[in-house]
Amino acid sequence: MKKANKKLNAAIVVIGNEILSGRTQDVNVASISNWLNDLGVKLEEVRIIPDVEKNIVKTITEVRKKFQYVFTTGGIGPTHDDITAKSVSKAFKLKYCYHPQAYKILKNYYKKGKFNLGRKKMAKMPESASLIFNPSSAAPGFVIKNVFCLPGVPSILRSMLGGLDNKIIGGSKILSKTISLRTVESEISIPLEKVQNKFENLEIGSYPFFKQGKIGVSIVIRSTKKKMIDRCLNQIVSFIKKKKIQIIEKK
Amino acid sequence: MKKANKKLNAAIVVIGNEILSGRTQDVNVASISNWLNDLGVKLEEVRIIPDVEKNIVKTITEVRKKFQYVFTTGGIGPTHDDITAKSVSKAFKLKYCYHPQAYKILKNYYKKGKFNLGRKKMAKMPESASLIFNPSSAAPGFVIKNVFCLPGVPSILRSMLGGLDNKIIGGSKILSKTISLRTVESEISIPLEKVQNKFENLEIGSYPFFKQGKIGVSIVIRSTKKKMIDRCLNQIVSFIKKKKIQIIEKK
Repeated sequence: MKKANKKLNAAIVVIGNEILSGRTQDVNVASISNWLNDLGVKLEEVRIIPDVEKNIVKTITEVRKKFQYVFTTGGIGPTHDDITAKSVSKAFKLKYCYHPQAYKILKNYYKKGKFNLGRKKMAKMPESASLIFNPSSAAPGFVIKNVFCLPGVPSILRSMLGGLDNKIIGGSKILSKTISLRTVESEISIPLEKVQNKFENLEIGSYPFFKQGKIGVSIVIRSTKKKMIDRCLNQIVSFIKKKKIQIIEKK
Repeated sequence: MKKANKKLNAAIVVIGNEILSGRTQDVNVASISNWLNDLGVKLEEVRIIPDVEKNIVKTITEVRKKFQYVFTTGGIGPTHDDITAKSVSKAFKLKYCYHPQAYKILKNYYKKGKFNLGRKKMAKMPESASLIFNPSSAAPGFVIKNVFCLPGVPSILRSMLGGLDNKIIGGSKILSKTISLRTVESEISIPLEKVQNKFENLEIGSYPFFKQGKIGVSIVIRSTKKKMIDRCLNQIVSFIKKKKIQIIEKK
């Protein structure tokens, strides 16, 4: 991974009717986000859109200008509802055609006589795209400018992320610490806000939870600066102790 | 639920750094989507955005014009990072102030002397908003024009959806059938596309899966018309049988 000084951000475009219909639970956003945290790139927006060409073209055209990196998931398989590659070609006004290397990879993967039209379709992408190799099931993803197109199947997507590390110009790793308390949010909201106001480039999130019939609050501190996180955590612990609130866990 | 003839659609705006950071897995999209299916309203877009006022204002302003209904999740609690009500007020250019009924509900809910500033904040919302009652933990959501603001905690959100049924002008229930096959997508993509081309107002989705070490494909047919789904399913079964592909399940 290369290093950059400027602020780095990313968006994910989840392409898939199955997520919008409630049939399938997306898990790729969390996988990509956690991978980006380590690379020092902040995920700042996600859009979930249907398998409809005009929606894909419009969304890609918009987000690729707003964000340093865009990741799409889904829609690069062999069936009629897989229209990501074609739509991304359109968004970039590029020819949608066979990628010679992708074609070769897929041809070698399938037995003789089994490389049918559906399978060939997976080698079609925007002209001049570079490939994202797929160690799980051959069919590659692709990159065109700042848009990285990945598959929707979670295990395959995860297997492809590692190979992308050196294509991302990253920043300092985004670190986080969590302190979980036996309390409710409204008991700590005022002093917590005071602490947040003292730390500008640090994010404090407050998240209520219910676990095994007991309620609590997790406070999550996020920053690229470890020392700043520690200072902030100390200030939180200090008011928590004054209020005699039980600390369940720090991690 | 009232009935309408025009095409009805919705968008969800998930507001929360915790989803973007990968810390928390969103499950509210699926809950709202499944509830909307029954009401005959189609979820057409989801945006996940951070707890940042300008992002919330911009996103709400955009999506409320594009979609019949907009649902927001998250950011209506008592802490500093809960800024949905304030931001939505800004998006609608409305005063952000105490809602008398919400104030009363919360005051009654907390013991005397326990109705602190953080808790009072949960009664602040855009002027003239109407309330979405919360049977789980008192703090209400609110509706302003076509924007419905719900909490982020999944169990509380689910408990509030039922109370909204009669605020949604719905359409015909969106039905679906799924047929799962022991095959791979690329074996069926061509005949499946031919079937899709014969049914215009019906969605056929194809989703590969890996279960207990075995691969398969689920084909999902969605439409408001049961007869059309059945006709489409028959045509799929017909080519599946010709290809001697095993049907694992129909439901």
